Amino acid sequence: MSEHDYAPIISYLGPEASFTHVAAKELFGQVGLSAKPTIPDCVEAVSSGRATYAVVPLENALEGSVPLTIDYMFNEHDLFINAELSIPIQQHLMVNQAQANALDSIESIHSHPHALAQCHKYLLYQYRGVPLIQSTSTAAAAKYVSENPDKKIAAIGNQLACEKYNLHMAEENIHDFHFNHTRFVVLSQKKGKLEKHGHTEIPKTTLMVKLPKDDRPGVLHQVLSVFSWRKLNLTKIESRPLKTGLGNYFFIIDVLEDEEAPLMKGALEELKALDCSVRSFGTYYSYEQRPTRPN
Amino acid sequence: MSEHDYAPIISYLGPEASFTHVAAKELFGQVGLSAKPTIPDCVEAVSSGRATYAVVPLENALEGSVPLTIDYMFNEHDLFINAELSIPIQQHLMVNQAQANALDSIESIHSHPHALAQCHKYLLYQYRGVPLIQSTSTAAAAKYVSENPDKKIAAIGNQLACEKYNLHMAEENIHDFHFNHTRFVVLSQKKGKLEKHGHTEIPKTTLMVKLPKDDRPGVLHQVLSVFSWRKLNLTKIESRPLKTGLGNYFFIIDVLEDEEAPLMKGALEELKALDCSVRSFGTYYSYEQRPTRPN
Repeated sequence: MSEHDYAPIISYLGPEASFTHVAAKELFGQVGLSAKPTIPDCVEAVSSGRATYAVVPLENALEGSVPLTIDYMFNEHDLFINAELSIPIQQHLMVNQAQANALDSIESIHSHPHALAQCHKYLLYQYRGVPLIQSTSTAAAAKYVSENPDKKIAAIGNQLACEKYNLHMAEENIHDFHFNHTRFVVLSQKKGKLEKHGHTEIPKTTLMVKLPKDDRPGVLHQVLSVFSWRKLNLTKIESRPLKTGLGNYFFIIDVLEDEEAPLMKGALEELKALDCSVRSFGTYYSYEQRPTRPN
Repeated sequence: MSEHDYAPIISYLGPEASFTHVAAKELFGQVGLSAKPTIPDCVEAVSSGRATYAVVPLENALEGSVPLTIDYMFNEHDLFINAELSIPIQQHLMVNQAQANALDSIESIHSHPHALAQCHKYLLYQYRGVPLIQSTSTAAAAKYVSENPDKKIAAIGNQLACEKYNLHMAEENIHDFHFNHTRFVVLSQKKGKLEKHGHTEIPKTTLMVKLPKDDRPGVLHQVLSVFSWRKLNLTKIESRPLKTGLGNYFFIIDVLEDEEAPLMKGALEELKALDCSVRSFGTYYSYEQRPTRPN
């Protein structure tokens, strides 16, 4: 609980110094943040009222399984998206301060399997043959390095973990793909746009559309016509299996328009007329964190 | 290396007894399987010729980050899909044989964070308050339980891990969502259909389509028309960000047709005429493992 009685509680996918923690801090500051071990725990904290917001990874995530977020949003709870934040994936190599001069003799490198994979080429060229040890999170790897000053080991993780565990930054930005982002969403029980400085000008609406039972070829094409002739711009479309058996799908569609705009209202009406079932996760703004250079 | 000099080497996302191992065994049997620590390691084993096939998770995965598979397939290597296998996600609670009669006094439950999340409701109802300890894989949790017969601990994982580490099956099928599948693909350097008993009758082709630079609203609609008027059935469509900056997308489209069929050839030609860049990952069969009851 924060020192302000009225500050909201924000549950996020932990542990502390995870990439989701970076996202939560960027949007909400330091106060009221509460780390949870899994995505369902984050979501449930909000639906039970113990937290006002949940921050969870939605796309291209490092530490969470993205289908998990979608499954829990779709199947379990009536939650809405209040904001999204896109942060660049920046992975750094860090060692204990006591080992700052021993970078040539690193004996093992620790991190979450996804982070190790994201730095695959760097590790192949710079540390070929050095054993890679998997940890449960990038933050756990940083913590382990901080607790073992005598070991010649390194961790891969983000800048927040480097600061929190007071490590020496050995090499910055060792990830293979630049321009790679992770997209986080803020969920709550209420529709509404979380307003902060620096958001995009055009709000976005996320829809889940279930096609009519009669799933003939071309029905998706018909659904997209609804948006196309209104010149509504889609920034994402993804088919996801329904959990009712193989071959049944729903679609997640992001539209660059407010759901209250007349064209959108028309589109939603028309989808229903086509016998689609449509659920809106609300309209929200997108925020974007720019790459930072540590120190 | 296998005992047969000519048997192919199959790299899969490890460790042993992972869900990907289950998939690899189902398709290739026991011989020639080689566990790799990350998805890029699996892919690189094939593109360097050290392995003939790679088995990696593609969708709704437990132990791998799915965007990683797509990123490495799209950006890095000229690989093709030779088969896909869908296996049901079945999570079980298992304890050391020495603790088979002490299920009421379990003091902690160990597993990969995704597996813990997939059994969220079961754990909430049956083991509320029991600490959940994260491990790097479901197999690592099972191994830990097998090595600590005196501890009152349990692991969550698949049947293969239960067998490999000779654990006692305490409760079967404790996952929250039934009908949940993970989709694995077999990659190789050559196009071709891996033929085994029990595949689907209709082959599937996976395409990656990059829209023309002129990314006006409705261009995706135009792309889908290409398939729609030919009555080609799409089983998946997903937009993925290109790694060249925000707002640039490509599409992954699965079509239920052989790429050599006349209608498909026409569709691919027409996509190119629309100024799309199209890459085919080849045509392959889908296999499906049915849920099994352990023992």
